[in-house]
Amino acid sequence: MVETKYADLPGPVRLDSGRELATIRVAYETYGALSPERDNVILVCHALSGDAHAAGRSAKPGESTRDGFGAEDRDGTAAKGLGWWDGMIGPGKAFDTDRFFVVSTNLLGGCAGTTGPSSIDPGTGKPYGSDFPVVTVADMVRVERALLELLGIERLAAVAGGSLGGMQALQWAVLFPDLVDAIVVIASTHALHPQGLSWNAIARDAIMRDPDWQGGHYYGTGRRPDAGMGLARMVGHVTYLSAASMGDKFARRLQDGDDIRYTITDAEFQVESYLRHQASTFVRRFDANTYLYISRALTYFDLAREHGGGSLTEALQGIKARTLLIAFSSDWLYPPAASQEIHDALREHGKPAELHVFDAPYGHDCFLLEEARQTPVIRAFLQMTDTEDKAP
Amino acid sequence: MVETKYADLPGPVRLDSGRELATIRVAYETYGALSPERDNVILVCHALSGDAHAAGRSAKPGESTRDGFGAEDRDGTAAKGLGWWDGMIGPGKAFDTDRFFVVSTNLLGGCAGTTGPSSIDPGTGKPYGSDFPVVTVADMVRVERALLELLGIERLAAVAGGSLGGMQALQWAVLFPDLVDAIVVIASTHALHPQGLSWNAIARDAIMRDPDWQGGHYYGTGRRPDAGMGLARMVGHVTYLSAASMGDKFARRLQDGDDIRYTITDAEFQVESYLRHQASTFVRRFDANTYLYISRALTYFDLAREHGGGSLTEALQGIKARTLLIAFSSDWLYPPAASQEIHDALREHGKPAELHVFDAPYGHDCFLLEEARQTPVIRAFLQMTDTEDKAP
Repeated sequence: MVETKYADLPGPVRLDSGRELATIRVAYETYGALSPERDNVILVCHALSGDAHAAGRSAKPGESTRDGFGAEDRDGTAAKGLGWWDGMIGPGKAFDTDRFFVVSTNLLGGCAGTTGPSSIDPGTGKPYGSDFPVVTVADMVRVERALLELLGIERLAAVAGGSLGGMQALQWAVLFPDLVDAIVVIASTHALHPQGLSWNAIARDAIMRDPDWQGGHYYGTGRRPDAGMGLARMVGHVTYLSAASMGDKFARRLQDGDDIRYTITDAEFQVESYLRHQASTFVRRFDANTYLYISRALTYFDLAREHGGGSLTEALQGIKARTLLIAFSSDWLYPPAASQEIHDALREHGKPAELHVFDAPYGHDCFLLEEARQTPVIRAFLQMTDTEDKAP
Repeated sequence: MVETKYADLPGPVRLDSGRELATIRVAYETYGALSPERDNVILVCHALSGDAHAAGRSAKPGESTRDGFGAEDRDGTAAKGLGWWDGMIGPGKAFDTDRFFVVSTNLLGGCAGTTGPSSIDPGTGKPYGSDFPVVTVADMVRVERALLELLGIERLAAVAGGSLGGMQALQWAVLFPDLVDAIVVIASTHALHPQGLSWNAIARDAIMRDPDWQGGHYYGTGRRPDAGMGLARMVGHVTYLSAASMGDKFARRLQDGDDIRYTITDAEFQVESYLRHQASTFVRRFDANTYLYISRALTYFDLAREHGGGSLTEALQGIKARTLLIAFSSDWLYPPAASQEIHDALREHGKPAELHVFDAPYGHDCFLLEEARQTPVIRAFLQMTDTEDKAP
């Protein structure tokens, strides 16, 4: 049973855009115990729709971010309140809390406790809405670092995450090479490909074309762009799965009986009903503006452009962290090719990097579902760090 | 220079749903000359967003359905008014009008001259809107047959089409085995897979969630669900391309200069701007209710369910037409595997079928773009028919 904690950063944070956020609150959870040497810390970073509640059972159940196949593959009640990476964080798990002190934060721009567009702008006393500054993955990482400093943590044994979480891990290693011993980058990329940019653009447009979005200032109006965000979620959800896994799970089974009902409006196929269900559960727990800002940040992320003058090899040359890359064969949103590129660029510099591509069917969602296969690889990788660090 | 003609069917058509349409107008075009024996007719069927204007230059230019890569790969002015399959239909082309009389119709439920949801319901004097009956691919085929009878055409040398057009060709061969000598089924399937069902469901939901859809009765209100249909088009468009071809065409190039502008609302990447452009041109020429009805029809299409008690082999056993199947390696919406299944089922019955899978980069849109490679295969296939038919 865990409870989310909140910390207010002591000073303002200057953002990539040039703007500054004067006050920032960060929601976070911790699992395991901090060693007296404070050298056993792993920062876990979440993806677009996650939150600080990565592991354990929430003191406020019903707020789990487990959904899609992740929620369904477990007993519905059992999944209630469980963290989004509970299968990976805990005693004896991939991120072993018998050994490590795991910190998980809600990212900057979020809607689950950390300052974001739905937070009160101290300058106006009203929610920021679309006046919230555009944030980048690097901004998220700066805020994570400021929180860790506040907690008295200087160094990280590892930063780990999947998808956007993996981008944050990479960004940590590039921005703060001397503070990170290792990174675990799962189902991620150094820069999303144009088809991925497209899906994100469509999802954002779905929200912004909803009249209830009201230019981003919908808080307190009694109207929210649920219709648009539901669409965004459906688009996202299909890109997180694979055609094969959708085929296995749904086939062309009808929702109701053996024959079609000649309806335009009703869900006719089970997969149609499933997508609508995903949409309606998601809009209950997520803020549309946060979706816009986080989606924008992950499409902007481009290590080569930001740090290498267009060259990925150049961008990664300062990295000191040992790097573990994991990718999944059926992930067409964050395909293995991108992990291979990162791996090759690191190896070109003679840096320690290993890549594992798992043959697994669930598409991008594998990083949330394929716990059993990731666990030994991550444990072995972290064990190495551990041994090296503790070696006399 | 061609002009679209219109014909009113002499009697009512009973639909799969059990409902009946008392009056049906069909828009059609013809290319080439009907032989005295009336034995050189090829019916060409269009896909979701096409119309009767398949070839030549329209007498009313600016109405071309060529868009996306298809419009861009040609000089903008040159493409103006050209039919959607102009590269395939004409003298010496794949469907050679020196030899064949090609008929192209706008399908039932359409918005380009054939009766559809935007047509006037004779019972009320107002547009049908969502009171239009739900139609199936078989219903479209019945209407095509009624038009051909009206034109004095009994037999078809071939029925041809890509995507939904290929579904119609298959449906012709199954429904009227004695009237069709050959079918050309390009980038199509006997039943869309669940991921394809999902994209269509999302596109339809985008339209229906737009408040300007007004339950389907938006005609004459001054408000149309352009926002929603634009989204539907963007989703569709990305599924018609491949990740590789989007990468080649757009990479991650920014719309404006070398650096990001920190904007949520504006198009930042060229691919974002391209998608919005596709959306805005499409909504000018297409009716949202037609999109709903045609999308529903193509997701319902399932030869095994409709004609084989769940078995594709069973469903195809009555086919007499020689069958040419063409698929494209990068088409993930109508993947080659589906064409292979049709091929194998036909071969199981010892029926004449050939399958060509072209290694081509443009995804589903290959059927509109890869004219050069399809042409010799289709010409050779039709030549065979021709020789057989004309043999003494």
